[in-house]
Amino acid sequence: MFDYKINKNIDKKLYLQVYESIKKDILTRKIVANTKLPPIRKIASDLKLNPSTIVKAYNLLEEEKLVYKKLGSGSYVAYLDDEMNDSEDYNDLKINERLNSGQINIENNINFASATPSANLFPVEDFKSVLIKVLDRDGGDAFTYQQTQGYYPLRKCISEKLKEDCIATNPEKIQIVSGAQQAIDLISRILLNEKDTVVVEEPTYSGAIASFNNRNTNIKSFPIQKDGIDLSEFEKFLNKNNIKLFYTMPTFQNPTGILWSEEKKQKLLELSYKYDFYILEDDCLSELYYDKIKLKSLKSMDKNGKIIYIKSYSKIFMPGLRLGFIILPEDLFNPFVSFKYSSDISSPGLNQRAFEMYLKEGYWDKHIEKMRVLYKKRFEKMYNKIKEIKEFEIFEVPMGGLYFWIKINDNFENLFLKASKRGVSILPGKVFSPEGNIKNFYRLSFADADEQKIEKGMNIIKSIIQDDKNLDLYPIL
Amino acid sequence: MFDYKINKNIDKKLYLQVYESIKKDILTRKIVANTKLPPIRKIASDLKLNPSTIVKAYNLLEEEKLVYKKLGSGSYVAYLDDEMNDSEDYNDLKINERLNSGQINIENNINFASATPSANLFPVEDFKSVLIKVLDRDGGDAFTYQQTQGYYPLRKCISEKLKEDCIATNPEKIQIVSGAQQAIDLISRILLNEKDTVVVEEPTYSGAIASFNNRNTNIKSFPIQKDGIDLSEFEKFLNKNNIKLFYTMPTFQNPTGILWSEEKKQKLLELSYKYDFYILEDDCLSELYYDKIKLKSLKSMDKNGKIIYIKSYSKIFMPGLRLGFIILPEDLFNPFVSFKYSSDISSPGLNQRAFEMYLKEGYWDKHIEKMRVLYKKRFEKMYNKIKEIKEFEIFEVPMGGLYFWIKINDNFENLFLKASKRGVSILPGKVFSPEGNIKNFYRLSFADADEQKIEKGMNIIKSIIQDDKNLDLYPIL
Repeated sequence: MFDYKINKNIDKKLYLQVYESIKKDILTRKIVANTKLPPIRKIASDLKLNPSTIVKAYNLLEEEKLVYKKLGSGSYVAYLDDEMNDSEDYNDLKINERLNSGQINIENNINFASATPSANLFPVEDFKSVLIKVLDRDGGDAFTYQQTQGYYPLRKCISEKLKEDCIATNPEKIQIVSGAQQAIDLISRILLNEKDTVVVEEPTYSGAIASFNNRNTNIKSFPIQKDGIDLSEFEKFLNKNNIKLFYTMPTFQNPTGILWSEEKKQKLLELSYKYDFYILEDDCLSELYYDKIKLKSLKSMDKNGKIIYIKSYSKIFMPGLRLGFIILPEDLFNPFVSFKYSSDISSPGLNQRAFEMYLKEGYWDKHIEKMRVLYKKRFEKMYNKIKEIKEFEIFEVPMGGLYFWIKINDNFENLFLKASKRGVSILPGKVFSPEGNIKNFYRLSFADADEQKIEKGMNIIKSIIQDDKNLDLYPIL
Repeated sequence: MFDYKINKNIDKKLYLQVYESIKKDILTRKIVANTKLPPIRKIASDLKLNPSTIVKAYNLLEEEKLVYKKLGSGSYVAYLDDEMNDSEDYNDLKINERLNSGQINIENNINFASATPSANLFPVEDFKSVLIKVLDRDGGDAFTYQQTQGYYPLRKCISEKLKEDCIATNPEKIQIVSGAQQAIDLISRILLNEKDTVVVEEPTYSGAIASFNNRNTNIKSFPIQKDGIDLSEFEKFLNKNNIKLFYTMPTFQNPTGILWSEEKKQKLLELSYKYDFYILEDDCLSELYYDKIKLKSLKSMDKNGKIIYIKSYSKIFMPGLRLGFIILPEDLFNPFVSFKYSSDISSPGLNQRAFEMYLKEGYWDKHIEKMRVLYKKRFEKMYNKIKEIKEFEIFEVPMGGLYFWIKINDNFENLFLKASKRGVSILPGKVFSPEGNIKNFYRLSFADADEQKIEKGMNIIKSIIQDDKNLDLYPIL
């Protein structure tokens, strides 16, 4: 008992390591209720740690009611809620642990958790045909290293397509990456150092939070409103703090689905010029509007080279290709190429070559058009089902994208786990929060669920909520 | 003139930015000989830098004889060597700059620089057939996200193949990566922090140096001998210093091609247990022996979980696939998966699936057998040609791998540039040195040159060396 191995070499806070070891043992009943935890000094000396580290771990356990303190006597393992079944609880713990490290297990029949398209929507036959054409055309060259910057014809093709979005660029300014996550991670490594401040929308994309946390930055978040963040609050903050980077998804923001208003976008750009910080614009969904609306990227509006523009193809095309690109301000370009080189030399060549042909031969436009029609139907289906649940409040009805951001009241904090047990995956709000402190919000995605599954899954969710309500409690008289 | 843009946000030393800006202007003749450089205080105040930063930049320029000092008057641009032709010199500068950031331009007809196989040796037809089979079998699933840890059947297949190499593992302990470079880079991020000490062989792989440098570590190197490094010297160092990691390529070391002796491998392992550090074993060539010799990896000899084992398929198969794997000690596994997730979510799925089928259906073994025969012939050809050049000294005749490590005397420091101008690429020793201070060594690779090209290229190198010798200089009387 209390035989914990703490690894001082890994980049994880020691008190968290101690906390997690003990927590696991409590939840798996390896140590039972009312067991006294070892005195802080003892465990600190055994593990060769500072006593304050143990204090922090014990406090965390107490906060979660896994441990209680007796004045002058020490800390004891608490009784766990009787409702909890050992193995189920352990499973919940594992689910939560995985969520925290960005992993999710989609064994469930109905997946409202992922924001990536269903595999059956992928244009496999078309892509296969371009793969074969590329192999017949390029032979072994398709399997050599690409330039670190990326396959030139692909960059050329992208820069031409960007004209449609009013983004003026050229192949020399484009860097191919293995998905948006890689771009965010490399930008973090180039720009951010310990204690630098990076500002994000809240809620925001968890992968970005992970990369900023890896750099030990201060993450300051501003709540998202229906048209962006509150920029006068932001400017007050800028008056007192230097920031290096602002991370935003202005078009169909993840997870809220909102669009920044044009006024706020313009104002945000002006702030970046005035207070000299970069804006990291993450665009992964702008093609997926349901009605023809005018969408303007920050990049297309920028006059002073403050926008770092990332485009991912994971959410609108095929995530397993791991392809995206980044357009960088001139002064960041060489450092980026050099970090891309040391992180994986270059992105796989065959995928780049096939994707170039896919774009050039017009498959892409055809595919996206089809997706728009299909997702609009799913959107409408889910929208109608959500409206049936009066406990749900939609943050803002999205005009495109793949998900709804739903508010629900306090009583349904465990909806995520309960739905999971009934075969429906949804994502709890805390996943999208830098501090993990968004409660009572869920992201419901229809990326991987057809209309039938939306019908079925939403009915299950509805019945969970109804059941909970029916469980009326009466005072004991 | 002197209108330099210095970027304080990027992770490159400021004095190097100043130095490089001025150097480029001198070499491109934007500022001509005898021009006085601005006073240190002036340029420091213009650029809002500390004067000592400018002093460092000027000193570097002086060291390279691009600038000379007049006592009490300041620094002036020097005359450049009359032999130098403007554009050629600028090209050399660009070549050197690219080398420093890991890039090389292989426009040359004859490539002895790359250690990756010729594209015409890739088994394109076989791989195409497995790609098509995978797409027909898996459809859209081939393009979804893989698990961050990697496609399970591939991990299973790898763990079974590793039994042949006496490595006992299982699919749960294997993590798929996008090439060895990614594995080295992620390990650096997990294990190494500023001022930590990492020990390397000298010469060593430049990509590893780049990753260690990105972490601002102290890199300590020990000269490679014909059977490994001097372990008693290493132990003396360990007595006085804590080290986190030892990076080694014990089998056909890059660039020397040597094999560590079994005695030294055993002793190295014991040191890692005694002084508690990890060993990063980078294995990219062990399949490529010319005569059946018994090769034992450190991983197969390790009893205490101190080996981090990386296997790349870039040098023996097809680099553009970007595939490799890593086996980690248990305590490093979760942090690695979590960093892999935040760096690029997962490696592309289709490539993993196709490679699994390629391995399982026996194509791999057939291909490697063919490569062994073919490379042995190239090896013999180059060996014979090297022996014709008496100015060349082979460090150690390799028993496998793809290159020779050649010593040559002082007079041929520019062989790299001269050969390049005659259409032959070779790699100068400095590329393989943490401090860039290996002179008079070259790596000659036959990975991308067939026997005809080896004949032709080696004859060109020979004639360069002969010509230089014929240019006898006599004292002026």
